[in-house]
Amino acid sequence: MLKCGIVGGTGYTGVELLRLLARHPHVDISLVTSRGEAGRPVAELFPNLRGYLDLHFEAPHPARLADCDLVFFATPNGTAMKEVPALLDAGVKVVDLAADFRLKDPAVWEAWYGMPHACPELLGEAVYGLPELNRDAIAEARLVANPGCYPTATTLGLLPLLKEKLIDLDRIVADAKSGVSGAGRKAAVGSLLAEAGESFKAYAVPGHRHWPEISQILSGFTGKPVGLDFVPHLLPMIRGIHVTLYGYLTSDCDTLQAIYEEFYRDEPFVDVLPAGAHPETRSCKGANFCRIAVHRPRNGGTVIVLSVIDNLVKGAAGQAVQNMNLMAGFDEAAGLDVVALTP
Amino acid sequence: MLKCGIVGGTGYTGVELLRLLARHPHVDISLVTSRGEAGRPVAELFPNLRGYLDLHFEAPHPARLADCDLVFFATPNGTAMKEVPALLDAGVKVVDLAADFRLKDPAVWEAWYGMPHACPELLGEAVYGLPELNRDAIAEARLVANPGCYPTATTLGLLPLLKEKLIDLDRIVADAKSGVSGAGRKAAVGSLLAEAGESFKAYAVPGHRHWPEISQILSGFTGKPVGLDFVPHLLPMIRGIHVTLYGYLTSDCDTLQAIYEEFYRDEPFVDVLPAGAHPETRSCKGANFCRIAVHRPRNGGTVIVLSVIDNLVKGAAGQAVQNMNLMAGFDEAAGLDVVALTP
Amino acid sequence: MLKCGIVGGTGYTGVELLRLLARHPHVDISLVTSRGEAGRPVAELFPNLRGYLDLHFEAPHPARLADCDLVFFATPNGTAMKEVPALLDAGVKVVDLAADFRLKDPAVWEAWYGMPHACPELLGEAVYGLPELNRDAIAEARLVANPGCYPTATTLGLLPLLKEKLIDLDRIVADAKSGVSGAGRKAAVGSLLAEAGESFKAYAVPGHRHWPEISQILSGFTGKPVGLDFVPHLLPMIRGIHVTLYGYLTSDCDTLQAIYEEFYRDEPFVDVLPAGAHPETRSCKGANFCRIAVHRPRNGGTVIVLSVIDNLVKGAAGQAVQNMNLMAGFDEAAGLDVVALTP
Amino acid sequence: MLKCGIVGGTGYTGVELLRLLARHPHVDISLVTSRGEAGRPVAELFPNLRGYLDLHFEAPHPARLADCDLVFFATPNGTAMKEVPALLDAGVKVVDLAADFRLKDPAVWEAWYGMPHACPELLGEAVYGLPELNRDAIAEARLVANPGCYPTATTLGLLPLLKEKLIDLDRIVADAKSGVSGAGRKAAVGSLLAEAGESFKAYAVPGHRHWPEISQILSGFTGKPVGLDFVPHLLPMIRGIHVTLYGYLTSDCDTLQAIYEEFYRDEPFVDVLPAGAHPETRSCKGANFCRIAVHRPRNGGTVIVLSVIDNLVKGAAGQAVQNMNLMAGFDEAAGLDVVALTP
Repeated sequence: MLKCGIVGGTGYTGVELLRLLARHPHVDISLVTSRGEAGRPVAELFPNLRGYLDLHFEAPHPARLADCDLVFFATPNGTAMKEVPALLDAGVKVVDLAADFRLKDPAVWEAWYGMPHACPELLGEAVYGLPELNRDAIAEARLVANPGCYPTATTLGLLPLLKEKLIDLDRIVADAKSGVSGAGRKAAVGSLLAEAGESFKAYAVPGHRHWPEISQILSGFTGKPVGLDFVPHLLPMIRGIHVTLYGYLTSDCDTLQAIYEEFYRDEPFVDVLPAGAHPETRSCKGANFCRIAVHRPRNGGTVIVLSVIDNLVKGAAGQAVQNMNLMAGFDEAAGLDVVALTP
Repeated sequence: MLKCGIVGGTGYTGVELLRLLARHPHVDISLVTSRGEAGRPVAELFPNLRGYLDLHFEAPHPARLADCDLVFFATPNGTAMKEVPALLDAGVKVVDLAADFRLKDPAVWEAWYGMPHACPELLGEAVYGLPELNRDAIAEARLVANPGCYPTATTLGLLPLLKEKLIDLDRIVADAKSGVSGAGRKAAVGSLLAEAGESFKAYAVPGHRHWPEISQILSGFTGKPVGLDFVPHLLPMIRGIHVTLYGYLTSDCDTLQAIYEEFYRDEPFVDVLPAGAHPETRSCKGANFCRIAVHRPRNGGTVIVLSVIDNLVKGAAGQAVQNMNLMAGFDEAAGLDVVALTP
Repeated sequence: MLKCGIVGGTGYTGVELLRLLARHPHVDISLVTSRGEAGRPVAELFPNLRGYLDLHFEAPHPARLADCDLVFFATPNGTAMKEVPALLDAGVKVVDLAADFRLKDPAVWEAWYGMPHACPELLGEAVYGLPELNRDAIAEARLVANPGCYPTATTLGLLPLLKEKLIDLDRIVADAKSGVSGAGRKAAVGSLLAEAGESFKAYAVPGHRHWPEISQILSGFTGKPVGLDFVPHLLPMIRGIHVTLYGYLTSDCDTLQAIYEEFYRDEPFVDVLPAGAHPETRSCKGANFCRIAVHRPRNGGTVIVLSVIDNLVKGAAGQAVQNMNLMAGFDEAAGLDVVALTP
Repeated sequence: MLKCGIVGGTGYTGVELLRLLARHPHVDISLVTSRGEAGRPVAELFPNLRGYLDLHFEAPHPARLADCDLVFFATPNGTAMKEVPALLDAGVKVVDLAADFRLKDPAVWEAWYGMPHACPELLGEAVYGLPELNRDAIAEARLVANPGCYPTATTLGLLPLLKEKLIDLDRIVADAKSGVSGAGRKAAVGSLLAEAGESFKAYAVPGHRHWPEISQILSGFTGKPVGLDFVPHLLPMIRGIHVTLYGYLTSDCDTLQAIYEEFYRDEPFVDVLPAGAHPETRSCKGANFCRIAVHRPRNGGTVIVLSVIDNLVKGAAGQAVQNMNLMAGFDEAAGLDVVALTP
């Protein structure tokens, strides 16, 4: 059994990790840390775990963490980078669900996250944890940067088009919509039911932190600069991301469906829907899938891709478990055999 | 492996059965019937099942059903009673998720359901499938009447009080609230998001079909007539039932918490919360638990019990699987180890 | 034109007052105070007011308030009681939307609100602002305590039964459900969409501050102690309160419908629905009505009353405007001719 | 007083018309027709109208309609076109809220609506009822085609860019999201709360009926073909449309904000938000506004416009009243002074 620790277990990615790991066949959850809730039973804060997890939150102690085989950071941005070097030195593997190790360039990190990076020397080693892109490197990694939710859905939606060089790289639109759990479990007026319910809006149009992350992946994959317009929106619901992607074909192509099916043929968690489909976010609710449909309306010059995930699963905790499975040599799908809830 | 059939697989109890049975370690789903959707892949109608279920809906044929070990009826009221006798004769066990076999008196059935009963001779044999009440009989049964959602939450909330004869049987209030999935997956104006969303109302105050069902259980358990006022309400959400129960103590009692904990000590799916708790319906979302809290405000004469379930799981499909496990001699919790989704 | 000031205009009762007063034919809004938002355009915080209100929030200054004819306090509990005496001395009338002047006994106030009362000498003078109960006194008042939301819906539902002495005063159940806007516009984890959405729970079962308020009104009206069980619940929606009331008839009565219709015949804002109806909270969304239905299931001993309001209108800002109209001698319905939004 | 009739008053645009007209200072509602609900009090079906409207639904009779000054059709597509010619002959003005008179080319109508047009000779006369585009023509019109909801929000968002010839007409993206009331008040599984709640999806990506409508307006305004990609999505909420528009600048422009403010300076119902704003759909809930923000992220080549309306008000009934006001010579804003509900 793999001894796992979770740093920062009181947020939504934390409780979601616990939901998945509590039933994982090869994992022992050794500890869950929280400064604010230290001493409190985890299942008191999250009653859905009653009967599945008999742990108390504990204050973080380096020695306790160093005793784990693998540690998940489900902390705010800027926390993991301070603690990871010591853990790696102690031989502990790390999956960081925050943004600390996603960007390769420390100057870009500082520009978008407003603080200098604490261990820029690790940015080169950290593997971006999108298994569909970096499976082999993840399996060898000591340190995995778990991707952001929007970047996961956006990238998976675009990869087949980019691989086949089908679209104009200067003009890609990613119109993204997320449920409010993406904002985390923190008291904020804008996330109140009475504010975010029964309403819809865009946010961060001038610039969102996931834009440089997506740009880095797409440019890295294509080897060229990519002109991406990315607008996130807040959905009046809890879970789910839907990204609507628009690309302009650079030449005719009548095999889009086959290209997508072929690209993802062997992927356990990417599901290409039949031609003509419109994926619903709920088809992934609680499950680790990304479901994708590709359209070319009126056989014209625009290809439209619809990509949905559960932002807390494939967009966070589920992908983290998938990465852990790869890093530990388990079946990649272990602990992730959850059927989405419908309705 | 137990060969199971599902009659009427296009509703919410149907898809929920499929979600649970698709991962059940001892079950093969042999067939799923639907007249309206015959020939269509089940996972096309319910994309959450993609990758888990490779069946097509088929029109119901008696011979195909007779070939199963156990058949679930997830049909509208009045369907199962026409088909069950032949199946039992063929040696097939049956769990009916509709109301056909819940009421013992065919006259009461006819009064509340508006049609004569097709096989009143089976009403005596049918076992009311509340494991906490009838575990042994269920294990021996050929035919189990799966309880209604409101009756499950209400009865589990009251049993300890009734066993200890603590409250006035003439004046019990059950104020019940259900998510809209309880109304089923049928086109009805009243269940539209634009009608049932952002609003709340009582319904069926003059009389609801679950009132005679609850009354029958409570009277059967106490051996006396029970004066129950039951008002169901429609919640602007999808899943979950919360019943708020009010009883008047007939004598002082300062051990309510202990009585509840003791009564349900060995139950795998009834969870008595710590004193002072207020269960949320979401603590059971997707899971087979009933979570209960008991209060006695200001140490006065009223005991207030809060009882929550997921109406589609412990209130329908999950309890049906629990009953099947008992009937087949499996571990009672097999296939039901699902952690509720939070958030 | 009546010169009105609003103290504490950044909460939900504040913005709702502004919505109603901005179109009121006889009111000038002189100032809206907020310490935190001083200097900011009101319509920037609440864009629904763009085009209707050209004011900035300002820090509270006694002289500015003393220059008003009437001041509304839309502040947290415990604020108004410190400022009201000086305003009254300056000849300003006051409507307090918080709880400061609702309870007559300062000891009860202190027990439930956790602080001593700052001006107990005014508790006797303050008029409880339920027009259906105290219309004449409100018209003469300098200081009106605007009722709580739950007490409004509960009291209006019970008054006809109490007046006619129809029910057992020892056993009344008020099972109350409120939308989350009742918790106010403050950052709190429990009010997040991801916490309160798609879920339902009771809260404060051991004791809620509206219980002594309701008890005081009912006892005052009947002249006897009243045994009330009151359980509030949190609805996964924004606006609306539904109270389900259970009373036990002390003698037979087959004229309940007529009694209710007669009692509220001349009330502009209490609407008795036809026999058999089930009011929806949305039928009052944005409007100042209380809609009521009365039932006696199976002609038995229990009378069940369903009472709905918009907690921010008849339960707060709308009733405050109604009180202001009475105090100023305007048409009681001035500024309140808003049709509820459906859907 | 203008005598108005409403044909088809049982849908959401019908009840919304009634909400607005019931308080309109210059309108008498003469009749509301419904075949299915004939004889039933309107306020029984829509209790929000209790106290404001004392009419019964009646079966449609030509003579009764011919007696009106103006008739609104709030009927399914294909109904008005059969009845309008006779009404016009009788001297009655008409506002059609359906699509019957929106498209100028009867072949395009037939292609998208699946039926031949019943009175193609009127298509030339019918005025497209977007006051910001056709105010003078509307004032003179006998027959006004009330715009679709998506076309209203999309067109108002694009007009300033098109007028100033700022963007590439070949590549415009309109990513549109609508609350579920846009699907109407008809029983349909896809609109159930349990289906459309807590989920999000695109629909009609291959082609939606509002695409030719928008294309016609934009091409008419620019005098050139316009390459528009339009993807509608279904929001898990009741009211509101948000359109996110992407255009590619053909030359540098640093005065976008001023251009928008200037273009809509005198418009009573189009509100250009301050630079940097992100309009919420709820800022228009129940009100006739379109609120717009314009962005140019990172000063790059893409202009992004955010345009929100209430689909039932500026997207349907409110705009119909605005058109009626123009046709009747009333103040354009009469009856439309409703402040949006927040929260």
